[in-house]
Amino acid sequence: MANHFADRLTGAIYAKGTCACVGIDPVYSKLPRQITERKDLNDEMDLEASLDAVFEFCTKVLRIVSPLVPAVKLNIAFFEKYYWEGVENYYSLIQEADELGLEVIGDVKRGDIGSTAEAYASAHLKNPQFVNTDGIVSPDAITVNGFAGLDGIRPFADAAVADDKGLFVWVRASNPSAAVLHDFTNAEGKKWFEVLAQEVATLASEPQRIGRTGFSNIGMVVGGTAAEQAKKLREQYPHIVFLVPGYGAQGASAADCLEFCKEDGSGAIISASRSIIYAYNEPRYAEQFGYNWEKCIEQACIDMKNELIAATANK
Amino acid sequence: MANHFADRLTGAIYAKGTCACVGIDPVYSKLPRQITERKDLNDEMDLEASLDAVFEFCTKVLRIVSPLVPAVKLNIAFFEKYYWEGVENYYSLIQEADELGLEVIGDVKRGDIGSTAEAYASAHLKNPQFVNTDGIVSPDAITVNGFAGLDGIRPFADAAVADDKGLFVWVRASNPSAAVLHDFTNAEGKKWFEVLAQEVATLASEPQRIGRTGFSNIGMVVGGTAAEQAKKLREQYPHIVFLVPGYGAQGASAADCLEFCKEDGSGAIISASRSIIYAYNEPRYAEQFGYNWEKCIEQACIDMKNELIAATANK
Repeated sequence: MANHFADRLTGAIYAKGTCACVGIDPVYSKLPRQITERKDLNDEMDLEASLDAVFEFCTKVLRIVSPLVPAVKLNIAFFEKYYWEGVENYYSLIQEADELGLEVIGDVKRGDIGSTAEAYASAHLKNPQFVNTDGIVSPDAITVNGFAGLDGIRPFADAAVADDKGLFVWVRASNPSAAVLHDFTNAEGKKWFEVLAQEVATLASEPQRIGRTGFSNIGMVVGGTAAEQAKKLREQYPHIVFLVPGYGAQGASAADCLEFCKEDGSGAIISASRSIIYAYNEPRYAEQFGYNWEKCIEQACIDMKNELIAATANK
Repeated sequence: MANHFADRLTGAIYAKGTCACVGIDPVYSKLPRQITERKDLNDEMDLEASLDAVFEFCTKVLRIVSPLVPAVKLNIAFFEKYYWEGVENYYSLIQEADELGLEVIGDVKRGDIGSTAEAYASAHLKNPQFVNTDGIVSPDAITVNGFAGLDGIRPFADAAVADDKGLFVWVRASNPSAAVLHDFTNAEGKKWFEVLAQEVATLASEPQRIGRTGFSNIGMVVGGTAAEQAKKLREQYPHIVFLVPGYGAQGASAADCLEFCKEDGSGAIISASRSIIYAYNEPRYAEQFGYNWEKCIEQACIDMKNELIAATANK
């Protein structure tokens, strides 16, 4: 049995025939009318109604996509905005996704140092340590902010190894302003994000972190729009799994994103959020499936998989 | 009435005669025995008992320090480890601290881009928008991770202005490994954290962000052990309030930290956590006050204030 996170993830990529991942970033105003027009859910400003609608939507999305993709990425920010009740729902959805056989990535972007980083790892990555936490399931992996360097990453990395979990350290953002900081270059022509990537890669290569597939349980988050760097990173760090957000709505193409994959399709998780979960708001799906919003999501997910397959063939 | 965050904070610094801030990072194993030995609280592995003990301790700490200091910093990581119940307690403590007249800084270190940053700002900084959130109070300011640059900071900054809140962007960590990333230097001798600080300072200088005291509602978190940079940052950015962690347990001296203050003692918040809230574990207080752990915390807080006053006199 492959317990190592990267082995589980790679196995799931092979089994589902895709490295596509669905990102769950729920926003009430974008939910299907069939949910928000229901009397008990029809008030965005009511915390309970709004959160219940979000939860119902997310539960259905998980069921639609679970036969199609190896992994989902749950963005905790969209649950934290409902305070502790939203956080409770976030953990419920992790449990739901886990029971559906998905690898679950908690997109929490936590980052701090020392005992604070340990506390965050305990909250978000480690299996619950308390005796009375029936039903609380922590995700298979989380995203981590690499700002504080190794002192900030190591507490998460050590917690991950102990519980067969993984982490993805954010090393290069896809937004325009990130370039000012991430492409900041020293006298030898080395960029700042390359230094961070090197630090992460070195930590990731420690023997206890490497699975049977040769991948480490420590990966990197690199924006899909950074395609020019993808090829180099892929070659340089054969043991790294890349989590690549930005497919679809954020403008990264299938070909761009596939630069992060190895020949056999492993080594990366390509995540699309809005273009999948709100597919029913796009004319090309709405016209085809009418009010069947679940079918729209399913088809968008299938289309993404096919786009990735087509781009792989042309690679 | 001074509604602007930096004006409120500066007024509180003058009123309490100190820029000392108490950091609340509660860890069950370090709590006073008078709390943890109580039958209903005597089980660290029981989530309810452990969290109840932490909550009781924090509530008492807030009451002890509220007459002495202008602000407290609540570290959310130590509540998140108790899942959503801990998050509920975090918000309860903000309300408690607010009612005690303290400026409350939520040490959440959130950082992401676009709509995710907006969702985090909504969760942690904006006043609650829902109709049924009686009693939920958001902090006066939060810490933000500056990793993604301006695209990541602006959503927090705009939310802060709208609700008279503040933020402190983490620009320089105090841990040893941070130097690799933060002191990374370009061909002109400019360091990476200086670029980030410049970005933050420029955003902070926008007119709508400046209060009557001349300070912006956007400040910076800079580790107290980075004293050599403090003087330069203080001179360069007269409109910035610095949040300086690391006093006490992390090794920054009073003189080091005071480099971040202006002549009149304003312009910085110097935060100590463990050295204050666990003072009863230190022989010099335990011997003086015996089992009166509350008195130990009070005296440690007074001593910190006096150390800062003495160091100011020698400046």
